[in-house]
Amino acid sequence: MRLIFLAFSIAPLAMLGVAWSALAVTQTDAASEIRNVLKSQQDAWNRGDIDAFMNGYWRSEETVFVSGDDVARGWQKVLDRYKTKYSDRAKMGTLMFSNLEITPLSDDSAVVLGSWKLNRANDQPHGRFTLIFRRFPDGWKIVHDHTSAASPP
Amino acid sequence: MRLIFLAFSIAPLAMLGVAWSALAVTQTDAASEIRNVLKSQQDAWNRGDIDAFMNGYWRSEETVFVSGDDVARGWQKVLDRYKTKYSDRAKMGTLMFSNLEITPLSDDSAVVLGSWKLNRANDQPHGRFTLIFRRFPDGWKIVHDHTSAASPP
Repeated sequence: MRLIFLAFSIAPLAMLGVAWSALAVTQTDAASEIRNVLKSQQDAWNRGDIDAFMNGYWRSEETVFVSGDDVARGWQKVLDRYKTKYSDRAKMGTLMFSNLEITPLSDDSAVVLGSWKLNRANDQPHGRFTLIFRRFPDGWKIVHDHTSAASPP
Repeated sequence: MRLIFLAFSIAPLAMLGVAWSALAVTQTDAASEIRNVLKSQQDAWNRGDIDAFMNGYWRSEETVFVSGDDVARGWQKVLDRYKTKYSDRAKMGTLMFSNLEITPLSDDSAVVLGSWKLNRANDQPHGRFTLIFRRFPDGWKIVHDHTSAASPP
């Protein structure tokens, strides 16, 4: 019986140890992978490719984009919103993300606070975003985006 | 050896079973506890008690309140912002939260999308909020609040 007891005692501790070290590695990877997703989005936007930009979002009916008092619900609605609001290259301007603060919430979720700015010929709209990322088999994706803008000057 | 092997095999499965059922219970509790926090905030606001309203936020330097292009960082700064912006009872009006959608992200974190509205004598500002809640020993608290408003009519 003593050996069985030992097995019961050690197994949870061993698994806990593995879980802890896995979490530390996961969190480092998570932040760099999330940075890569946002870098890919910025690059896609700046070559005028909204479809590629949308690869950063979870392709689901549950994905939400929130701004003002509006909620665009579902990946397709988020895409439609971008295509309507940024209907030509001049309106898209040059996008820059900055001040990224990535906070893991679990091994498969994280929140990102960041700044965005569009450099356009006649204005430079800018503001903040809060993003909820989740990890899926094909990588980290935005499931919830709340974006706000500074009041126009 | 066979018994030891059995112990190693069963222990993780048994723990997984416990973990699953604990998570299900936790998530139900989480949603109702989070609703209670928001209900308490609404009630505190509507009796003009901003200090009690602030009990819903994590009392930490890391707590953030995001709106427009601004970030109030730290519990005290969030309180200061509320007291400056809502400096008398008329400005506070009557607060109503609605359309709460609570999504657990782990057993100790959740995201809440909701609507807010202030009924005041001369206007009814309204909009949306995204809240990140975390569970602490003294309950669920808002660690990150991104609030946006509809453009004034």
